[in-house]
Amino acid sequence: MAKLTSRNEDYSKWYNELVTKADLAESSGVRGCMVIKPYGYAIWEKMRDEMDRKFKETGHQNAYFPIFVPKSLFEAEEKNAEGFAKECAVVTHYRLKTDPENPQKLIVDPEAKLEEELIVRPTSEAIIWNTYKSWIQSYRDLPILINQWANVVRWEMRTRLFLRTAEFLWQEGHTAHSTREEAVEETEKMLEVYADFAENFMAIPVVRGVKTPSETFAGAEKTYCIEALMQDGKALQAGTSHFLAQNFSKAFDVKFTNKEGKLDYAWATSWGTSTRLMGALIMTHSDDLGLVLPPNLAPIQVVIVPIFKGEEQLAQISEQALNIVSKLKQKGISVKFDDDTQNKPGWKFAEYELKGVPIRIAMGARDLENKTVEIARRDTLTKETQPIDGIENYIENLLKTIQQDIYNKALNYRDEHITKVDTYEEFKRILEEKGGFISAHWDGTEEEEQRIKDETKATIRCIPLDSQPEEGVSLITGKPSKQRVLFAKAY
Amino acid sequence: MAKLTSRNEDYSKWYNELVTKADLAESSGVRGCMVIKPYGYAIWEKMRDEMDRKFKETGHQNAYFPIFVPKSLFEAEEKNAEGFAKECAVVTHYRLKTDPENPQKLIVDPEAKLEEELIVRPTSEAIIWNTYKSWIQSYRDLPILINQWANVVRWEMRTRLFLRTAEFLWQEGHTAHSTREEAVEETEKMLEVYADFAENFMAIPVVRGVKTPSETFAGAEKTYCIEALMQDGKALQAGTSHFLAQNFSKAFDVKFTNKEGKLDYAWATSWGTSTRLMGALIMTHSDDLGLVLPPNLAPIQVVIVPIFKGEEQLAQISEQALNIVSKLKQKGISVKFDDDTQNKPGWKFAEYELKGVPIRIAMGARDLENKTVEIARRDTLTKETQPIDGIENYIENLLKTIQQDIYNKALNYRDEHITKVDTYEEFKRILEEKGGFISAHWDGTEEEEQRIKDETKATIRCIPLDSQPEEGVSLITGKPSKQRVLFAKAY
Repeated sequence: MAKLTSRNEDYSKWYNELVTKADLAESSGVRGCMVIKPYGYAIWEKMRDEMDRKFKETGHQNAYFPIFVPKSLFEAEEKNAEGFAKECAVVTHYRLKTDPENPQKLIVDPEAKLEEELIVRPTSEAIIWNTYKSWIQSYRDLPILINQWANVVRWEMRTRLFLRTAEFLWQEGHTAHSTREEAVEETEKMLEVYADFAENFMAIPVVRGVKTPSETFAGAEKTYCIEALMQDGKALQAGTSHFLAQNFSKAFDVKFTNKEGKLDYAWATSWGTSTRLMGALIMTHSDDLGLVLPPNLAPIQVVIVPIFKGEEQLAQISEQALNIVSKLKQKGISVKFDDDTQNKPGWKFAEYELKGVPIRIAMGARDLENKTVEIARRDTLTKETQPIDGIENYIENLLKTIQQDIYNKALNYRDEHITKVDTYEEFKRILEEKGGFISAHWDGTEEEEQRIKDETKATIRCIPLDSQPEEGVSLITGKPSKQRVLFAKAY
Repeated sequence: MAKLTSRNEDYSKWYNELVTKADLAESSGVRGCMVIKPYGYAIWEKMRDEMDRKFKETGHQNAYFPIFVPKSLFEAEEKNAEGFAKECAVVTHYRLKTDPENPQKLIVDPEAKLEEELIVRPTSEAIIWNTYKSWIQSYRDLPILINQWANVVRWEMRTRLFLRTAEFLWQEGHTAHSTREEAVEETEKMLEVYADFAENFMAIPVVRGVKTPSETFAGAEKTYCIEALMQDGKALQAGTSHFLAQNFSKAFDVKFTNKEGKLDYAWATSWGTSTRLMGALIMTHSDDLGLVLPPNLAPIQVVIVPIFKGEEQLAQISEQALNIVSKLKQKGISVKFDDDTQNKPGWKFAEYELKGVPIRIAMGARDLENKTVEIARRDTLTKETQPIDGIENYIENLLKTIQQDIYNKALNYRDEHITKVDTYEEFKRILEEKGGFISAHWDGTEEEEQRIKDETKATIRCIPLDSQPEEGVSLITGKPSKQRVLFAKAY
């Protein structure tokens, strides 16, 4: 197995190689669309199940809405439509027929043209609010707290596996409320659900913040986000929660009778995370040997590799190994005993390092004698010898330790890469030399934001929710500012 | 709440009303596409999770493939392409732009025409076998046992909620094997997984069988199916498992080196079930009052309704009720205590009957005194009084009994509606008067099959796997036949 390109050599190449070699995903025969392979999908399933649990715990229900949005509905909320118009895959016909000039071929049947074109959903606010119209008459029908797991399509010109693909999998929450306050509260609650999930399940530290107007979701009044930092110093938006105010209820005429008996438009939120999180996972934790998976997300948490000469030794080791397998399974730990005889232990070690299996147990003849095993951690690459007796408890605790250590490592890296700067010169120097988040003053205008973006490629990732008021002057215009914001180059 | 149309009066209207009134699904603003509402989706989730568990237990893994199939890939397997060509939604453009004549409107940007049209997948054999090509080189790469949960689109002209919709949710398994025998074994194994799921989880008895050539999946050598019988005497195909032989591996040139070192084409299967199963569920068990759900599929298995006068009584009943709730939850039973004060008990009774909640517990003042509750079964509409003490064990057993009774009832109905006939006159009479499956001899030709279909609307649902050899003569042509087949009108 050829080694991965190292991160230092070419970060982008390292990422692409890792995604394909670790069997997470690959490009498909369809421009910009990916195939999520079983190993990658198993990780996504773990993310999905945990998020789904959290959504249900916070009172949400799943539902499913059509993949197609008729053009007339799509354009009803103008800003939203404008924001996505350039990325829309459009269905115009509903039938193929045999090519009269070449009976081996099929052509689009020109007689089967749709009266109205259908957009393949890039996001579902339009189709969902058109549905909510008939569901909402009174404040008693509210709140509506619905989530959908679905595929969406955004026709991107430059695509990268997981990070930016023409089709991706995601969840989109769409809620309706009777008051502004309740909708804002929901928006903030779901941001916290995302942040908690990212940090405590994916071991990815995130900054909770609010987007500037230029980065706000098309159709929202306010977009909250969680921003993570990748190992190359670039930021990645890991989830967004939008306060949509009454924009969609007005566009789709969704009115209800409130407690006072007056008609009002419903208040809305939407929030989403996607398979992009797979990219965040990979780029936050992995190294030059391959994936590093937090135990919570690892399809295989422990692998046992026998080191043997001849069948008799293998049989002896297997007996002990299967005993350990059974004890670990009883604790709900997913474990694989790799007794394949085609590949040598060294090959297996490299393979499971590439796949990010958190703990590797090696068992040889001497271990059998000593009633011990060798335990190797994927995250630290350290090894130690432990007695077989009680190994299941040791492993159970070690998995928790690894989960926490992986998070702490990412947190340290992130915190070391938030730099306060006060001049534009320093800003450019830090961005070039160190990368990461740069905490700086901004004059609050789109002009300054845009100029910085044009000149440095850095954007305002967010106005952090926990940032303290601080008097200062903005980077370029020198105008007064009351708060620092976070800049970074981003995925 | 207005009553449902009765089944006797208008079965089709009964079905449509039930689906919408029980909050399972509704039509959307997109022609032929449905919205699956939270209550309906919760039932689908239970089906999905159980099937998913069974697939994984039998060694399958999930993955995800693109929703779009480029036309050139789509037409590679000719019969498959021909079979689906008339139902294809086709993406031709990838961008909208502002209408120069009306800046409020968006139009399809004629400059953003795709070089090659994309078909929205009606099924994924083409895109998946195009992918398998690079995954399969040696017999060591086989078998590949993959399943996908996805949405698919088939442009149907006449649609009905769940039963026939332009977009539906489904799972599709796609496996690759090194020998014909192994692929046939997989095809049969998955049919049995479906049959077991239908009977033991959904409480729907099914006939396992094989389709005639005219009803075989486009691109398959042999299609196995499970066929269920609805209460109006019509059959419903509840799942199919296809032996695809080497049709797709040849179309996509998927060759591998076998154990003997020779090149061979891979052997394929595919198998699927869809949200159509929701229709089967509804039409197998439900009655004129609404849904009847087998406990395995009920989002709410038990509802507790307090019968009270005044707040004090409600408080007393609530205390007892919440105690029962907690005991039931400990047993993993999903239970709802409906202490809403807006609606009267009678209204609630009707509502939960409509929604198919298997067990209703009513608690009034006298019950409190006697330390009893009233238990009503949704399936039999019977009531009984039981002591509160030990109620959780009683309910746990009752849920199992109900699951079994619902199955037995459907099984009896089904078995009573399999009629052996030996003449075409009798065939037509039974079909008209009684419906159900008709077991009859057939001469094995497409001509006779087609003529019976044209004249009676009945099709051969399957050649049952368990049917015994029997000499006979066919219905119309009087030619010799060695086996009976099952005819029925079908959804």
